[in-house]
Amino acid sequence: MSEATVSRVLNGVGPVKEDTRKRVMEAAQQLNYVPSALAQRFALRKSGNLGVILPFLPKVNLFSTYYFSEVLSGIGITAKQRGYDLLLLFREPDEPKDYVNLFRTQKVDGCIILGAQDVPSERAVLDELQQGQYPFCLINQRFDGKTFNTVDADHRMGSFEAVKHLANQGCKRILFLNGPSVYSNSLDRLEGYRQGLAEMKLPYDSSMVLVGNYSRKSGYNLSEAIAWLIKEGRIDAVIAANDRMAIGLLQGLRELGLQVGKDVALMGCDDSDGARLTDPPLSSIQVPFYEVGCMAASNLLDVIAESEHRSFEIKLPVKVVVRASSAAENFSEA
Amino acid sequence: MSEATVSRVLNGVGPVKEDTRKRVMEAAQQLNYVPSALAQRFALRKSGNLGVILPFLPKVNLFSTYYFSEVLSGIGITAKQRGYDLLLLFREPDEPKDYVNLFRTQKVDGCIILGAQDVPSERAVLDELQQGQYPFCLINQRFDGKTFNTVDADHRMGSFEAVKHLANQGCKRILFLNGPSVYSNSLDRLEGYRQGLAEMKLPYDSSMVLVGNYSRKSGYNLSEAIAWLIKEGRIDAVIAANDRMAIGLLQGLRELGLQVGKDVALMGCDDSDGARLTDPPLSSIQVPFYEVGCMAASNLLDVIAESEHRSFEIKLPVKVVVRASSAAENFSEA
Repeated sequence: MSEATVSRVLNGVGPVKEDTRKRVMEAAQQLNYVPSALAQRFALRKSGNLGVILPFLPKVNLFSTYYFSEVLSGIGITAKQRGYDLLLLFREPDEPKDYVNLFRTQKVDGCIILGAQDVPSERAVLDELQQGQYPFCLINQRFDGKTFNTVDADHRMGSFEAVKHLANQGCKRILFLNGPSVYSNSLDRLEGYRQGLAEMKLPYDSSMVLVGNYSRKSGYNLSEAIAWLIKEGRIDAVIAANDRMAIGLLQGLRELGLQVGKDVALMGCDDSDGARLTDPPLSSIQVPFYEVGCMAASNLLDVIAESEHRSFEIKLPVKVVVRASSAAENFSEA
Repeated sequence: MSEATVSRVLNGVGPVKEDTRKRVMEAAQQLNYVPSALAQRFALRKSGNLGVILPFLPKVNLFSTYYFSEVLSGIGITAKQRGYDLLLLFREPDEPKDYVNLFRTQKVDGCIILGAQDVPSERAVLDELQQGQYPFCLINQRFDGKTFNTVDADHRMGSFEAVKHLANQGCKRILFLNGPSVYSNSLDRLEGYRQGLAEMKLPYDSSMVLVGNYSRKSGYNLSEAIAWLIKEGRIDAVIAANDRMAIGLLQGLRELGLQVGKDVALMGCDDSDGARLTDPPLSSIQVPFYEVGCMAASNLLDVIAESEHRSFEIKLPVKVVVRASSAAENFSEA
């Protein structure tokens, strides 16, 4: 037997006759070293790790962000129940995306990607993964025209129902504070907002759509502009694409002497812990992030276990939660 | 060259002449397969992973717990800056502790252990790690009589200063709601509480120490008993060993018609986000969990990089933060 063959067996690379594989593994065993799970993994090509690719944001404690903390929790519990450990892979936006290498070097058996953006470099590397048949799944992001595995929530329906709720409260001039358009959920929410306006026979005006970056600060920074619009009578309600921006806006408006729930109706999205604790408590859209994490992990682990190349595209429902920030009896002009 | 030798080289196990190692690696290279970082890691015995062992608690979203989220954040950012990925290893309390295997199978280069308890099975496995010279570090837990690497906060000083603060507000009958004694930080806080009483010339009475389990619910469940003690005039202040228990207690007391900040002074510990948002806001003890995470990761990675067997024992300071729950002018009897 050649060195090359032994090497191929032990590295799990290239074609090897089953009989040959056995002989090499037995010889290796006879050396009486620790039954290296590493060598076994070579044979099985399994690392026992489920990779989670996350954006690296040094200034933000990602774990304390409701969204990431809920999704990670769902992934972690599901992975653990299936005997997998979680490999957290923090990646900076401009860092070269080494996703394929994670598989080739057997660091992971599958990968869940959080915070993917619809930009050319991301599309390119996901195409690479798809072509190499490496098991992966996107969360909260889709790529039109592609058949990548995704688990998402029905963001479109969320803002659709939010507009309907506010209109039923008497609001007629509803501003939408969205997130960046590199995220498909931002596009979905915008579509739901437009459809909701049409449903309630309210006009759509593109100047009534502002864009933050999902951070609390970005909501806060827009409070002056929005306060002016409120005082001018140009808007009577705001839907923010997440709670953090809504909370930042609420703080800013309060500092400028305006009261959410009285001078303007406000709704956020995510229904995070913070939404219950603001003054007034914040109406929001409940998004099942934990379940999204569970579904992503369990479906991906099924694909890995079955060595199938099936693809899955899952969308979970959302729910409007009404609190005092949008429940005042009448927001329409006297 | 024997198959055994090739196997030894490729598995990085046992003594191998440098010349032999080179020949095998060259032969492997000539096969023109992907320069397997896995094979390289064999040679270097490096996985590129920093392991974090965490308690597996399915009912609790660990990531949204202030303590874990802050510590993980510190570990994660530090590890990332040093080129390491985080392998999260959730382990149930009764699960056999496979820590040594993580190293032998090269899943991790080092391990940080959160939530370790001072029980015989834990001591035994940590001894194993120490004897095998596997690099590890404990957070927020020490084992008396051992020289394990630890990063901790000065919990004793925290409750010492808390007692002094309350006594300075006029409190004379201070109840202490502690956590389970399998955690060294519980023992430290108790010691600080006793020393603080002695310092302020107040008597220590063991019946004034109750034990919860650090959960919000355990604080809530003790509210009836504590309410009775307040109404009987037997206590005028409570220090809880963490904010969660304090918040549960606050809720319970409110339901029983008692007002924290008026009928009783209350302090928590951790200074988590929740402490600012309660009514009244909760006095607490600020513990630098994020820095604890950073210190643990950076010191452990130094040990791994230098292949030294030095041990480190780090203790970071804490700080009392006074809010309305304990700042009323006078809590002593009229």
